[in-house]
Amino acid sequence: MFSITVRDHVMVAHSFRGEVFGPAQRLHGATFVVDARFTRPELDQDNVVVDIGLATRELGAVLAGLNYRNLDEVPEFAGINTTTEFLAKHIADCLVARVHEGALGEGARGLSGVEVSLQESHVAWASYERTL
Amino acid sequence: MFSITVRDHVMVAHSFRGEVFGPAQRLHGATFVVDARFTRPELDQDNVVVDIGLATRELGAVLAGLNYRNLDEVPEFAGINTTTEFLAKHIADCLVARVHEGALGEGARGLSGVEVSLQESHVAWASYERTL
Amino acid sequence: MFSITVRDHVMVAHSFRGEVFGPAQRLHGATFVVDARFTRPELDQDNVVVDIGLATRELGAVLAGLNYRNLDEVPEFAGINTTTEFLAKHIADCLVARVHEGALGEGARGLSGVEVSLQESHVAWASYERTL
Amino acid sequence: MFSITVRDHVMVAHSFRGEVFGPAQRLHGATFVVDARFTRPELDQDNVVVDIGLATRELGAVLAGLNYRNLDEVPEFAGINTTTEFLAKHIADCLVARVHEGALGEGARGLSGVEVSLQESHVAWASYERTL
Amino acid sequence: MFSITVRDHVMVAHSFRGEVFGPAQRLHGATFVVDARFTRPELDQDNVVVDIGLATRELGAVLAGLNYRNLDEVPEFAGINTTTEFLAKHIADCLVARVHEGALGEGARGLSGVEVSLQESHVAWASYERTL
Amino acid sequence: MFSITVRDHVMVAHSFRGEVFGPAQRLHGATFVVDARFTRPELDQDNVVVDIGLATRELGAVLAGLNYRNLDEVPEFAGINTTTEFLAKHIADCLVARVHEGALGEGARGLSGVEVSLQESHVAWASYERTL
Repeated sequence: MFSITVRDHVMVAHSFRGEVFGPAQRLHGATFVVDARFTRPELDQDNVVVDIGLATRELGAVLAGLNYRNLDEVPEFAGINTTTEFLAKHIADCLVARVHEGALGEGARGLSGVEVSLQESHVAWASYERTL
Repeated sequence: MFSITVRDHVMVAHSFRGEVFGPAQRLHGATFVVDARFTRPELDQDNVVVDIGLATRELGAVLAGLNYRNLDEVPEFAGINTTTEFLAKHIADCLVARVHEGALGEGARGLSGVEVSLQESHVAWASYERTL
Repeated sequence: MFSITVRDHVMVAHSFRGEVFGPAQRLHGATFVVDARFTRPELDQDNVVVDIGLATRELGAVLAGLNYRNLDEVPEFAGINTTTEFLAKHIADCLVARVHEGALGEGARGLSGVEVSLQESHVAWASYERTL
Repeated sequence: MFSITVRDHVMVAHSFRGEVFGPAQRLHGATFVVDARFTRPELDQDNVVVDIGLATRELGAVLAGLNYRNLDEVPEFAGINTTTEFLAKHIADCLVARVHEGALGEGARGLSGVEVSLQESHVAWASYERTL
Repeated sequence: MFSITVRDHVMVAHSFRGEVFGPAQRLHGATFVVDARFTRPELDQDNVVVDIGLATRELGAVLAGLNYRNLDEVPEFAGINTTTEFLAKHIADCLVARVHEGALGEGARGLSGVEVSLQESHVAWASYERTL
Repeated sequence: MFSITVRDHVMVAHSFRGEVFGPAQRLHGATFVVDARFTRPELDQDNVVVDIGLATRELGAVLAGLNYRNLDEVPEFAGINTTTEFLAKHIADCLVARVHEGALGEGARGLSGVEVSLQESHVAWASYERTL
């Protein structure tokens, strides 16, 4: 199995609901360093998993919808705890939608999986992995 | 599949038995930067894999039993080569026992797997992965 | 010249005023991975710059005043752009005050300088360096 | 499942054919930081996955065949786009051949898989994973 | 003293002349992860050293002149060993020229120094530091 | 001012004397990831600070005297707390002696300074900087 991974980041504010979150129930923020990993069993005719330039551009486009925002005020996330693991799934699902739309190129239709990891600090990160 | 990972470290002395270890047969030491990864297929009702605060606390508790020790003198490891890969399994097994005891919260009973990685230097690391 | 550095982090929300900040004028957030570096020309009688345990504890205490907060609502920062470089100075000044109070031990009075670096992402960081 | 990983690097020149590569069609170069991961279900009698010293030596031997070269002029790669993902497979296959030749020790015959990752920059990497 | 640092990278081919370089006399290549650090004694009225957005844009513009090139064929470098330390100086000098041209904003005229570091692998890097 | 830095590591056991060290008074161990930085005001005729190959070889030679040892039993360190900052100075002084012996090449006589940093974990490191 082959993979390529590209990295970018977002800087957001949010708060959590639920006693388990302790002080993180207050409005605070995070930088998420985001790694998007694309997998496929065989390379395409150019010998790539997916074009790294397109993968980087599309990850950037997905993150632009979140960047420099207070996620508590994003209608799509109303009433939702936007935890690191939840955001990993949100970003992975957005990337898969773009693959299906052809935004990562025709060859990207041969992708078998996507994994998104969000590093919230030097001591904690989360990921979500799914098939295409 | 979702995951969260938390990081901590231990500083131990030990020696190895067996010619394959060369100079590492002498008493020496290591800092192990330890990553504990918890996986589950679906998030709990708080939208988390497991509470990061509890995961960090329990990883710290497990590592406290090893930290600042000469592993050659720990009765539990008598006659055992405490290699990086062996210690990864030891820590993973301790974390799983704590999950079963409820130390990571009731929601943690939905965890499906644990992976522990130990980075022994900037050029070598080991891991052990198991189901719950 | 000797130094020791300890690392911790904070997760905050804030916004900036001024066109130069573009989208960062909106309420957003950041994880700052914080490195506090202590320097001195000669080691103390224990052969240390300052006790790493005390340095880590005091850095944590300083950061606790910022962590999981919306800096726009912290009275001390009213009307101030809490940029990464500004926060580096704030944290450095707080650490120096603690040194003068004796919180880092008597030996810490021999320190000559403090530098605080804040990594806001994998591609940007800031620092502030001062004498004691 | 257990694993150990060792890290080394190569510095090569190459060019790509195909419009998708844009400016990378020109002769350029890369440092690839190479991680070779070896997996097996159970440890051997020394409590290791494979001897880290041998794994490091053999990874270095495989990389020596590529290091400080213009891959466009290596006969083995004539007419081939030596992408990061292609090189990951090439290195993994070479390591597996060496395992079968016994170069990683008799115990290495118990290995079940090899994964090779090549980091081409701080924001992009590729990998290839296979069974033995 | 305050600083901010921004990171980007380039991928180039080149060769060296001189026996001291051993196999690096052959045409090979490198990824250089480039950190540009800007220093000044006091913050400007926006509380920044220099706008991080402008610093990132201008570093990218300077690197665009090198990226995906064979440096042996760049007329400006004819007959020159484009070592990591030489390139650090080249990039720093280009950044200083842009500061003087006003490309980093009027406030950037208060900068006192620039340091450029190039990481050529996980085990080697070089830097050049100068005043403005 | 120019610099180059090379990285290697050692794995040692040791213990400390003094109440300030708490549990580190017990025999324990550490991996030290060691960065040796060489500085000079101008490059030599090959356009380098010092040959990276020689610098790497000599750093390795200095570290070989410490690697896989219990520092409590090294006669040279009898009665000495081999703290991270102490070891940084020890390694820097050894490297300077080798420069004076010519082991880093004739050109290395133009070096102006050496700084050695030892990372003992992902959250703590120490350094020592001196002139030649």
